[in-house]
Amino acid sequence: MKHYEIAVIPGDGIGKEVVPAALDVLDAIAEVHGGISFKYTNFPWSCDYFEQHGKMMPDNGLETLQNFEAIFLGAVGDPQRVPDHVSLWGLLIKIRREFEQVINIRPAKYFRGLDTPLKGPNDFDLLVVRENSEGEYSEIGGRIHRGDDEIAIQNAVFTRKGTERAIRYAFELAQKRRGHVTSATKSNGIVYSMPFWDQVFKDVSQDYPGVQTTSVHIDALSAFFVSKPHVFDVVVASNLFGDILTDIGAVIMGSIGVAPAANINLNGKYPSMFEPVHGSAPDIAGQGIANPIGQIWTAKMMLDHLGHQEIGQHLLKVVEDVTQSGVKTTDIGGTGTTKQVTHEIICRLKR
Amino acid sequence: MKHYEIAVIPGDGIGKEVVPAALDVLDAIAEVHGGISFKYTNFPWSCDYFEQHGKMMPDNGLETLQNFEAIFLGAVGDPQRVPDHVSLWGLLIKIRREFEQVINIRPAKYFRGLDTPLKGPNDFDLLVVRENSEGEYSEIGGRIHRGDDEIAIQNAVFTRKGTERAIRYAFELAQKRRGHVTSATKSNGIVYSMPFWDQVFKDVSQDYPGVQTTSVHIDALSAFFVSKPHVFDVVVASNLFGDILTDIGAVIMGSIGVAPAANINLNGKYPSMFEPVHGSAPDIAGQGIANPIGQIWTAKMMLDHLGHQEIGQHLLKVVEDVTQSGVKTTDIGGTGTTKQVTHEIICRLKR
Ligand SMILES: CC(C)[C@H](C(=O)O)[C@@H](O)C(=O)O
Ligand SMILES: CC(C)[C@H](C(=O)O)[C@@H](O)C(=O)O
Repeated sequence: MKHYEIAVIPGDGIGKEVVPAALDVLDAIAEVHGGISFKYTNFPWSCDYFEQHGKMMPDNGLETLQNFEAIFLGAVGDPQRVPDHVSLWGLLIKIRREFEQVINIRPAKYFRGLDTPLKGPNDFDLLVVRENSEGEYSEIGGRIHRGDDEIAIQNAVFTRKGTERAIRYAFELAQKRRGHVTSATKSNGIVYSMPFWDQVFKDVSQDYPGVQTTSVHIDALSAFFVSKPHVFDVVVASNLFGDILTDIGAVIMGSIGVAPAANINLNGKYPSMFEPVHGSAPDIAGQGIANPIGQIWTAKMMLDHLGHQEIGQHLLKVVEDVTQSGVKTTDIGGTGTTKQVTHEIICRLKR
Repeated sequence: MKHYEIAVIPGDGIGKEVVPAALDVLDAIAEVHGGISFKYTNFPWSCDYFEQHGKMMPDNGLETLQNFEAIFLGAVGDPQRVPDHVSLWGLLIKIRREFEQVINIRPAKYFRGLDTPLKGPNDFDLLVVRENSEGEYSEIGGRIHRGDDEIAIQNAVFTRKGTERAIRYAFELAQKRRGHVTSATKSNGIVYSMPFWDQVFKDVSQDYPGVQTTSVHIDALSAFFVSKPHVFDVVVASNLFGDILTDIGAVIMGSIGVAPAANINLNGKYPSMFEPVHGSAPDIAGQGIANPIGQIWTAKMMLDHLGHQEIGQHLLKVVEDVTQSGVKTTDIGGTGTTKQVTHEIICRLKR
């Protein structure tokens, strides 16, 4: 019996609806497959928590999380109440950084039963490897206050270690897939960080002579995700570019509500964190209509990470079956509620 | 008789094919409408020029361009021969900056006769106002060379003046359109420049109580350009975000080959520059198959700018008629060459 202690942070908005749904599904799959069980410890860290305590998590929050096998997170942020850069940097991004979750993996593929906004062809299956610890998301910068002459400066910081690590991870994955890595760049406009990125990409590629490579500027690449997503295998991108590409990847699948993500710690010192691509969606929160698939597919990525690829594959198959059967939420053209979709997935799992 | 002196820079790759095509069209429309004429002065500044002279334009290049009414540019860049950051910053971006072309306007709309990758609805008509002089595209940065510990730093610089100018321009345009401005932000991840951008957006919006506003993070906004482009009217974005959004805007119209752009000088001291969204496309250059519509629609934006909106409107109508009639290049599903499409447009103009 493999037993896993999972830290659960539902967070804000629809996070509080889709996380319980995904945990029910996880329990069902553990029951069906046997040999695996989960214990969940819930942490109410969120904008609610901020309003009560003036911070997004307690001072010993990271210490508390450290000994769990994995962190399962819903969504963080509610900009009407707490500015995003406060809520996100006090919780989500803090965990990503402090726990050295340096890689963010986000698949986008044709998903049975999902209607996509694209006419087709729908046979795409790509994986974005996003550098998750540095780059454009930095806390270095500030403003010079001089009224009309005010200036804001923001630094992007790219280390060779961080850049190489993400790019190497992409090459390793490509070797197990279709052997092609596309690098997102913008070295024609952003003339320090991006030529550096290109250089590291070229250097790392020397170690993988069997892997084909292409570099594409982020503007064109974003467009190609719409016009020809099927040409991509593994795409490696900086923190910001990966963020943008994976939302496009999500929408071409059919909805941001279905896309999963994994924040991977590589050195084994800290837990990895699993959270879907979508945000807290305050506009639809509390109505019971949020799409649980993003969170459930994210649970599948957690299963993969824990070494249970077969179980994960079974789960995804069942989710696709249910979607194809027409039981789905309104964002993907159905009439189902979060609970109905979750219930149907659990029933099929137990069948 | 209005007479205009136009500086023409075909540049690299397909620029050399689509620019002459668009000039033929401009001449035809001048002939048809009367009362307007153009004189073109050609400048061969390009990567060819770089290989001969070690620079993208002569030292007095800007001085030479300064007295023209407008600059009509094709595309710059040929990364196999000259690194992009050298070719672009030595010509295209140099002109944008030195001539204070601080605003870049790029429309995206349903275009008759173009098949789009989206299932629909196709009734979108949006305008991206891109800050064109600062932001993420800065020449401030560098590397610390320490082998494995190498670090590259890139500064993004946002001034209140530059940010406010772009945002104000967007509000002015929105007042003449459907009265809605969407601001592209990423203040949840990029915590100095983007909260500053949001602040300026909020400040400027106070002056336009009749205009509705929305702020959307660039990741979600990129996805919304695919899933619901029809909800947008005017979208205002930083240099990088505008770059990305307008390539997506181009692809949802049907092809990057059709999208036009105008680099606008606001203070009247220097000429504005008109160049399509697409690049030099070295892969298809020299084959005579490049889509001339981006460059021709760009000519229409130049006509608008020179005060000939009616003529511009007529030109765009004819281009749409031709596209709808099926005479089009291969990138948009036709079999026509650059010359055939151009010829058909000229014939219809003269009819
Ligand atoms: C060529 C490149 C520097 C340029 C830019 O990013 O501004 C281009 O993509 C554009 O959009 O005009
Ligand atoms: C909420 C935000 C800071 C975050 C990011 O940009 O990393 C989100 O968009 C994501 O992709 O996980």
